Amino acid sequence: MKVEVITIGDELLIGQVVDTNSAWIGSKLNENGIHLSKITSIGDSKEQIYKALDDAFASADAILMTGGLGPTKDDITKKTLAEYFQCGFKTDQQTLDRVKELLQRRGISVTDINYMQAEVPEVCEVIQNYNGTAPCMVFRKERKLLVSMPGVPFEMKGLMEDAVLNLLIKESGTQAIVHKTIMTTGVPESVLAKRIEEWEIGLPQYMKLAYLPSLYGVRLRITASENRKKDLTDAVEEQVNKLKPILKEDIFSYQDETLEEVVGRMLKSRNLTVATAESCTGGTVASTIVSVPGASLYFKGGVVAYDDEVKKDLLKVNPCTLFTDGAVSKAVIEQMAEGARALLKTDFAIATSGIAGPDGGTESKPVGTTWIAVATPRSTISEVYNFGDNRERTMIRATTAALNMLRIQILRAD
Amino acid sequence: MKVEVITIGDELLIGQVVDTNSAWIGSKLNENGIHLSKITSIGDSKEQIYKALDDAFASADAILMTGGLGPTKDDITKKTLAEYFQCGFKTDQQTLDRVKELLQRRGISVTDINYMQAEVPEVCEVIQNYNGTAPCMVFRKERKLLVSMPGVPFEMKGLMEDAVLNLLIKESGTQAIVHKTIMTTGVPESVLAKRIEEWEIGLPQYMKLAYLPSLYGVRLRITASENRKKDLTDAVEEQVNKLKPILKEDIFSYQDETLEEVVGRMLKSRNLTVATAESCTGGTVASTIVSVPGASLYFKGGVVAYDDEVKKDLLKVNPCTLFTDGAVSKAVIEQMAEGARALLKTDFAIATSGIAGPDGGTESKPVGTTWIAVATPRSTISEVYNFGDNRERTMIRATTAALNMLRIQILRAD
Repeated sequence: MKVEVITIGDELLIGQVVDTNSAWIGSKLNENGIHLSKITSIGDSKEQIYKALDDAFASADAILMTGGLGPTKDDITKKTLAEYFQCGFKTDQQTLDRVKELLQRRGISVTDINYMQAEVPEVCEVIQNYNGTAPCMVFRKERKLLVSMPGVPFEMKGLMEDAVLNLLIKESGTQAIVHKTIMTTGVPESVLAKRIEEWEIGLPQYMKLAYLPSLYGVRLRITASENRKKDLTDAVEEQVNKLKPILKEDIFSYQDETLEEVVGRMLKSRNLTVATAESCTGGTVASTIVSVPGASLYFKGGVVAYDDEVKKDLLKVNPCTLFTDGAVSKAVIEQMAEGARALLKTDFAIATSGIAGPDGGTESKPVGTTWIAVATPRSTISEVYNFGDNRERTMIRATTAALNMLRIQILRAD
Repeated sequence: MKVEVITIGDELLIGQVVDTNSAWIGSKLNENGIHLSKITSIGDSKEQIYKALDDAFASADAILMTGGLGPTKDDITKKTLAEYFQCGFKTDQQTLDRVKELLQRRGISVTDINYMQAEVPEVCEVIQNYNGTAPCMVFRKERKLLVSMPGVPFEMKGLMEDAVLNLLIKESGTQAIVHKTIMTTGVPESVLAKRIEEWEIGLPQYMKLAYLPSLYGVRLRITASENRKKDLTDAVEEQVNKLKPILKEDIFSYQDETLEEVVGRMLKSRNLTVATAESCTGGTVASTIVSVPGASLYFKGGVVAYDDEVKKDLLKVNPCTLFTDGAVSKAVIEQMAEGARALLKTDFAIATSGIAGPDGGTESKPVGTTWIAVATPRSTISEVYNFGDNRERTMIRATTAALNMLRIQILRAD
C-alpha cells in the first residue's frame, strides 16, 4: 500500500509552523510496515487542494490529510472536500453532542460556529475526535482512501492511534514485521555503537538495527521482517538476551516508555518516596516526575531553590559553604539533596544546581556545568556534568541524568 | 514569482528526521515577499525525483531542492539531475580546490570520492558552498530556475543567505508583503472569532486574517499584500488599532513571543519578584518561568507541594481548611499562594491545585478541576477552571492560565 500525506496551512509555507505532523505520521506508518512515499504541504487554497488531491489519487492508495479544519473563515478544507466530491452537507449528531458537552464542561456557550463544526460532507464517514471539536472524515474514491484530520498535533495523533492506523493496516494487509525497542540512557551514541559492534555484526540478515538518539538517551530499535522460517518474536528476543550482558544497567527498559515511568514504577513497587531540590532545572525534574499518572504515591514534593536565600532558608545549606564553594559545587549540591530529604521526609531526594546560561559562566565553571546529587537512606552521591550551552537542552539533559542517577541508586539499594 | 520546495531523503519519509529546512526557507522567502506555494518531500528514488521535477516545472517559476548530495551510494540527486537534463559531467575546479584544501587542513587525505564530489552536470552553474563539500547547482529550463542545495541545515542556510535569496529576488521583482502577529490567551478560538467578527468582515480585501490556536492561546496573523495605493505597514497598524479596544487585555503581545517572556519583562522592568506554590502542575509553572534567560532577576523559587503534608508544613496551609474544604478549593489555594509569598519573600506568588487525572475526580470536582491563585502585595485573587481530562494538556493549560492571571494582576497594579 502506497500512502501519501498532504498537510494544509499557509502557516507551513511561510515558516511560522514547522510541519512535525508528517514526520510523526511517517514514523508510525514505518513501524507498521506501511510505505509513505510522499509528503506535500500546500496553502489554504481551493485550487491547491484540488491539484494535490488529483495528484495523490493518481499515484497513492491512501491519502492522509491534515489541517484546515478549524471553525474560522480561513480554514476551507471541509468546504473544499464537499465540492471535490460534489456533495452537500449533513450534521453529524455525535460530533454535535460531543462539542456541546465539551464546551459546557468548560463553561463556554455554544455558538453558530460550533453547529457548523458538526456539519460534514454527505459522502464521508466520521471518526470521532475525542481531543477536539473538528471531526475526522473518511472518503472513498474508487478503491482508494482519503482521511482528513485536524492539524493540531495531539488531535491528529489521538485519531491516528485510536482508529486511522488500524484502518490502514486492515486495508493494506501488511507483511509480518516485529519491532523491539531497547531504551538506554547515559551513554553517547558513538560509544554505544562501539560497545555493541560485535553483537550488531552478528545480527541475522533479516534484522535491522536503528539508533534513535535524543536528549533523553539512545533508543535502539530492532526490526525483523519477512523471515518465514522462524518465529520473528522469538528470534528478536534471542538477540535481546545477547545484548543484556553487554549494556547491563545502561538499559532502562525493553519497551518504548520514558525514564520517569520506569523510575515511578520502581519507587511504587518498593513503597519508596522521593523529593526534589532544584536550582538550574527550576522545577523541570519535579514536573517530569508528576507527568506520570499516580505520581502522588511516591512523590511528596520539592523546593525550587533558584535564589541562594532559598537554598539557605528552606534547604538549610550552610551559608559558609555557599560562600566558599559557590552554589554550583559538590558540597552545596549534597547539602541541597540532604536538606530536601529531611524537609520533605522522603526516602530519596534529587538535587540539581548548574549554570544554564547564556550568562554566568566562568573559566573554571563554564556555562553548562551542572552538579546533581541523590540523597539515599544510606549515603549521598553526586556527580558533575557539562550539558553544553543551550539552556533548553541543558534542562532536559540534567533532568534525564538526575532521574537516571536515582534509578541506579534504587537498583543498588535492592 | 511562484516558488516550490522539494526535499529529498528517505529519512524524511520514515520520520527519523523532521524537515525543518522547508519552514526556514518559507520564512526567508516570506520576509522577502516571495510566495512559496508548495513543499514536497520524497525519497531517494530516481522515479520520484523525475516526477517531482515534472510537476514543479509545470506549476512554479523556481524550484529549490535540498538533499541527496552526500558522497555515499544512497545519495542520487546529482546523478539523477544529469540524466534529467540529458547531459554529461564536468569537473568544477573551484569546488575541487576547496574540497582539497578543507581536507588537508583537517589532516585527511583526498580520495576518489572527493574527486567525484567536484563533478557536476555540464549544463549547471555552480555556487560555492563554503560550509561543506557538496556543490550547490543552478539549472535553467525554459525561463525557469532549479537550485539544488545540500540538505545539511547550516550548509543550506549559508547558501541561501549568501547567494540563492538574492538570485530569486533579482529574478522575481517581488511584491510587497507585511505580516503582523497578535498574541491572545484565555479566550477560546470560537469565542474570539465571534468577538472580532465585525472587525474581521471590515478588513480591506488585500488583508487576510489567520487564526493559529494552540494550548498556549490563539495567535492572530494579519497578512497584507499587493496594495499599491497605501503603505502596507501603516494600513495594518490601523487595523490593529481598531482591534485593541475589542480584545483589550486578552492581547498579551503584538509580536511572536511567549507569555513567560512577556511576564518576565514586565516583572523585570518594575523590579518585582515572584514565587510559586504548585500542587497539580508539579513544577511546570516554575520551570516555564525559568525557561527565559535572566529569570533569576525576578524568580526567587517555589515549593512543589504535591503531598498535603507539604502544604501544611512549608506553606502553612491550615489543617482544618484542608480537612473541611479539600486541597482543591478556593480557601486552600489562596492560603498556598499567601504561604509561598511569605515563605519566599516575594512581591507576587502563584499557586495551583487541581485534579490532573486520570483518577481522583468526584462528581463535584471532576478530573480537570483546577484552582489557581495569585497573591499580590494588596490582595489575593483566585479562579477555578476545568482544563479537561488529559494530564499533559492540563499542565500546560493551567500554567498558561496562571501566568496570564499574574500578568493581569501586574497590569492592574500599575
